[in-house]
Formats: sequence, structure tokens, C-alpha cells
Amino acid sequence: MSARLLDGAGLARQLKAELKAEIEAFVAAHGVTPTLAVLQVGDDEAASGYARAIARTCKGVGVAFRAETLPGEASQAQAVETLQALNRDPQVHGIMVLEPLPAALDLDALLDHLDPAKDVDGVHPLNAGRLATQRPPFFVPATPAGGIRLLEEAGVDFQGKEAVVVGRSNIVGKPMAMLLLHRHCTVTVAHSRTVDLPAVCRRADILCVAVGRPEMVTGDWVKPGAVVVDFGTTYTDAGLKGDCHQESVAAVAGMMTPVPGGTGPMTNVQLMTNVLQAARQAVAR
Amino acid sequence: MSARLLDGAGLARQLKAELKAEIEAFVAAHGVTPTLAVLQVGDDEAASGYARAIARTCKGVGVAFRAETLPGEASQAQAVETLQALNRDPQVHGIMVLEPLPAALDLDALLDHLDPAKDVDGVHPLNAGRLATQRPPFFVPATPAGGIRLLEEAGVDFQGKEAVVVGRSNIVGKPMAMLLLHRHCTVTVAHSRTVDLPAVCRRADILCVAVGRPEMVTGDWVKPGAVVVDFGTTYTDAGLKGDCHQESVAAVAGMMTPVPGGTGPMTNVQLMTNVLQAARQAVAR
Repeated sequence: MSARLLDGAGLARQLKAELKAEIEAFVAAHGVTPTLAVLQVGDDEAASGYARAIARTCKGVGVAFRAETLPGEASQAQAVETLQALNRDPQVHGIMVLEPLPAALDLDALLDHLDPAKDVDGVHPLNAGRLATQRPPFFVPATPAGGIRLLEEAGVDFQGKEAVVVGRSNIVGKPMAMLLLHRHCTVTVAHSRTVDLPAVCRRADILCVAVGRPEMVTGDWVKPGAVVVDFGTTYTDAGLKGDCHQESVAAVAGMMTPVPGGTGPMTNVQLMTNVLQAARQAVAR
Repeated sequence: MSARLLDGAGLARQLKAELKAEIEAFVAAHGVTPTLAVLQVGDDEAASGYARAIARTCKGVGVAFRAETLPGEASQAQAVETLQALNRDPQVHGIMVLEPLPAALDLDALLDHLDPAKDVDGVHPLNAGRLATQRPPFFVPATPAGGIRLLEEAGVDFQGKEAVVVGRSNIVGKPMAMLLLHRHCTVTVAHSRTVDLPAVCRRADILCVAVGRPEMVTGDWVKPGAVVVDFGTTYTDAGLKGDCHQESVAAVAGMMTPVPGGTGPMTNVQLMTNVLQAARQAVAR
């Protein structure tokens, strides 16, 4: 048996083409171009690389991209001021703060100043709370939203299924657990303190892994026929690796997302979907 | 074997005495009396009874109680206006909206107008999100906060334990799951769509039930030695009943909260604790 590999790259291409047409229609109807501003403090290479990737994705679907950069020695007050200026700017619909920030800055305190209506990355606690309590409108972090979309397009049935989410980050694990719970899965959140993690994973009809430990999950952790969603992306000497050992997991699972080409490409397109949603809400106000 | 019954009524009495002294010291230090305002629309008997119970608890610990009542035919706009006046009133530190509201009013839309800094019942999505993402300050809904407190006082060890929460309400099940997750339990949320709920419950080292179905959980659903927390309170012909069948569960569990006298009394004292927290934050601003 060999798992069906869920082609996130292919689906992302299709969704981007659809989104490009939607954005063109939106621009034609409202004379407004959905715009994403990215705030970067300092010149961390990972942050710069991510900014370039986002700029490319924006260009591909017709979202305007604006880079706001502050020097690495900028103060917390300067960062807050720049963020608030973006909040006030009616031409900006979505805002992202790139990580990592310089060590002197407090990310959570900065994000408290982000307008929740422009929080297209779903990092403001108001969006986390609206998601948790199912009170729209809210923005779902792009990575779990993209993962769910990939499962939905593959026809995965959620209701009554045992889902296990490994990892409890605010940006992937917890929101993924909420998305699965709202689709009526029985949801378990496991993590580094979980006792006998392999046994907990083997309970899962739907196993989602977001821990950043390359190839941690092996085939013997997986229930035969399960759906496995791999959110891990770690660059190793052997290339980009997910949290799952692909060969052994694929031999047991019914479906799985590969790395690369699974959840990663879905994240970018979901971010663009969120920017369009923010622009729609802005013109409706 | 017979479970140790966790005496919530006794602990609540002790905590109330401690809280009364803390509140006296706060009043002496700041010349401000912590004040809870309760907004009731219409004259629903359950809401009125709850208001009277809250007023009694307030009196017992030295919190000032203010009842704001609107006629049953009040409009949504009138309810919002009254709530906003309470938000603005510097003498009010905590605000609760009593349920049920008349059918013509939209509770969630009303609660969006509640100042999160006065949301001592933890119902505003900003507080839900700050709890979920562990970004204080936030208010935890009184029922799960009281339940956790009862377990902590009983010396329950959380780390690495399998916790199962049955029920996924915004006010009990979901916040209880978060509190357990942050204490490093492996947490499963089960609900009405869960397949083989008894088997899922039997996995639990810590089983929390909040569904409002009297005596649903019987001893054969419980792992020997487990800690069982019963949040159910349903008035039946045979008296007040929890979600657990007390006799059969007590024969299997290691500890359990009785109904009455378990989590219920803890809820009231936790609400008062939240009002004092709100007053402290108000004088610190």
C-alpha cells in the first residue's frame, strides 16, 4: 500500500489562477487594488527571503506589495508608530510583521497594536479568539487554513474522526485544532510533554504534525489508512524535510501531504486569499 | 474503592474568606470598592435568580453589586447603549450580561461592545484569544477557572496526563481544554459527534464533563483511579444532578467533584476573584 500524495503545489497553482481572476474583477468593480504591507525590522536573511517570496506571490495574483523596513536598531516605539501608520493607511488592506525581530523588540506587544481587520496572518489575539469561539469575521493563520483547504479538496470526511495535532503553537497547532474541532472531529492536541507520543499518533484518523523536527514521525506511528498532514519544513543537508519520514509513512497512510509540495505552497495562496478578504471587508465598510 | 470527593463548597468558603480580606485591604489602599454591574434584559426567572445569587456572593466578599435592567422589549441599540455606559463608568470594574436575552436580541453582537478590560466572565473574543495564545492579561471564564483551581488545591499533577474534555462550549469546554493544555496535559476535546464516547472517556487520567445531560457518564466510562470533574448542573425531579452518575463513577475514579458542592460553588468565588483583578488593573492604569 502506498499513500495518495496530496498535491498542494498543483492545487495552489489552480487556486492562484482563480484568485488572480477574482482580484481582477475586484479591482475592476471597486477601483481598489488589494494591498499587503510587510513590516521588517533589521536585515535578518530569513526575514528578507520570506519578504521576497511574499512579493513574488503577490505579483503572481495581482496583490500590491509594500515593504516597510526599519533599521535593526529601531526602538519598540518606532516599530509601533510604523505599524499604526499602516493601520491608518486606507490603501493598505493587510499587514504582516516579519519574524524574527531584533532581540530588543517585543513581538507580542507590537502585535497588540495591529488592527485586527488588517491582520491577514491571524496573529492578533482577537482573531484567535474569534476563531476559537466561531464568531466571524476573523482571519485564520495561513498555514493551518491552507492545510484544511488541501484536505477539503481531497474529499476528506471530518465528522466524528479522531484527529491528532502534534504541536501547540499559536500559529499552526492551536488554530489547526480549532479548525478540526469545528468540522466535528474529536481532537487531541499532543506536544513535547506527551507521554508515548507514537501511541497517541496511532489513534489518529487524521494526523497533523507541526513541530519542526525533521522526519520525527515514522510509519510505525501511523494508523493504517490515516490521513497525514505534514506542516514541517526544515532545511537539512539532505534538502527540505518535513516532520514525517516520507517513505515509511507513505507505506502505511491512506493519504499524506508531501514535503516539499504539500502544505507549504498552500500557505502562500491562503495568505493572498486573506488579503482579498481584508480588501473586500474594507470596501464594504 | 471509593473516590475522594473534592469539596468545592468548603474550598469556596475558605477562598471567599481570603478574598474578603484582600478586598478590604484593596479598599483601604485605594479608596475604591470593586464593583460588578450585571445587565439583565427582561425578567426571565433563571436570569433573575442568577442575579440574586451573584448579589449575595458580592455582598459576602465586599464587592459592590449594581443591577442594570432593561425592559424585555428593549432594542439591540438600547442594550448596546446601556453596555457602553457601563464601559465608560469608572466606578464599574466588571460587567456581566445575563442570559437568556429576549429572542429579538443578538448576544454575540452585544458582547462585541463589552470592554474586554471589564469582561470578568471571559466572554469577549479578545479574552478567549488571549487565553488561547497565553498572552496576559485576560479573564478566564469563571467555571473552568474554578474547576482548575479545585484540582490544583487537591494536588493534581497535570504534566503529561491524558485529559479528556467532553463538551466544546465557548464558556466551559474550550477554555477548560486550553487551561489543561497550558498545564501540559495531552488534551482531547470530545462532543456530541464523537464516535464511541465511552471509549474516549476511558482514555482520560483527567476527565472533565460539561454537557448538561444528567448522569450521562457512568462508572464504566471511567479509567480506574482517574480524576473526574463534573461541570453539569441540571435540575431534575430527583434534585440537582451533574453529568456524572455519582455512585458508579465514585466506585471507579480516584477523585471526583460532587454535584452539588463541587465545581458550582467555585464558579461564584472565581467570578469575584476576576472582579478584584479587574479593579486592580483599573487602579494601575
